[in-house]
Amino acid sequence: MAREMLRQGGRSARIQAEVHRTVQELLKEMDRGEITVPMIAEKAGVTPSTIYRRWGDLSELLADVAVARMRPIADPEDTGAMASDLEAFILQYAEEMSSKVGRAMMSDILGSLEGDAPVKCCQYTYHHLETLRERAAARGEVPFEANEAIDFVVAPIVYHILFGDREPTPGYCRALVRRFLKS
Amino acid sequence: MAREMLRQGGRSARIQAEVHRTVQELLKEMDRGEITVPMIAEKAGVTPSTIYRRWGDLSELLADVAVARMRPIADPEDTGAMASDLEAFILQYAEEMSSKVGRAMMSDILGSLEGDAPVKCCQYTYHHLETLRERAAARGEVPFEANEAIDFVVAPIVYHILFGDREPTPGYCRALVRRFLKS
Repeated sequence: MAREMLRQGGRSARIQAEVHRTVQELLKEMDRGEITVPMIAEKAGVTPSTIYRRWGDLSELLADVAVARMRPIADPEDTGAMASDLEAFILQYAEEMSSKVGRAMMSDILGSLEGDAPVKCCQYTYHHLETLRERAAARGEVPFEANEAIDFVVAPIVYHILFGDREPTPGYCRALVRRFLKS
Repeated sequence: MAREMLRQGGRSARIQAEVHRTVQELLKEMDRGEITVPMIAEKAGVTPSTIYRRWGDLSELLADVAVARMRPIADPEDTGAMASDLEAFILQYAEEMSSKVGRAMMSDILGSLEGDAPVKCCQYTYHHLETLRERAAARGEVPFEANEAIDFVVAPIVYHILFGDREPTPGYCRALVRRFLKS
């Protein structure tokens, strides 16, 4: 029984990896509007029902793939001081999220109305901000609160990227950080 | 020629209205994941290619329908003072956007990567904030800036609705407004 479960887990993980890899390849080759579940299934060597059972529908699968690609691989840069740490992190965040790839990933993640991709995605951001906060506290600086940095720095940047009403330029991002740290 | 264009305009407007109406009916009857362009075309009595030519693809059509439903029908309530005007507007905004219908509309609008639905949607918000600002100025109050209200009040609320990391409760919204007007 334990062995059976293990084998299931291994198979399940292999299917997930293969389906994710297939989706990423298809996204390079065509518009996401052209991608279908049967197309992914055929290329990944699974049945469409395996995909529907596991992910529910195409938008949940695309959200799952996008959030997996967003998983952080390294801590934010340590620049020696809280203000420059936060500025460097925010400038990189705004650049990545406003790139064509970043916009498409965010759109895929927010296309998930039922799944946990949106929460996971912003937990990565909280995690990075928490790292910066702890680093500042260890240096003896008065640290910011991660949830306030989300509200007053990250949220406006994300809003403008999503709604396209203004460019989150480096100057604009720096002004948000400065205003936040002074408040 | 002028008559031809007029006739085209009339026909074109009728098609748009009929397709919009059909999409809204289908959205009441089924999950958006089940809706297809051929299904809409058949029910609206047009060809699928008419829809593709006009809207590009299904997600642009859904975004167009959602933004049309969001078009404001009245000015925000006049409560007699800027602070209470802004609070009343923001509480209503947060309630509408975090409802099931509001979330679905926002998701449809942000599903448009190419169209102008996202910009249109946030222009409605700017427009309302501008109305409140002008009203405040006319009363002799020191008015807020609409784009700052977007950054420090609207954006955090939208962020939490989209990413689901916290509820934009009335208490939370009121605190954002108070902090913003004091800053």
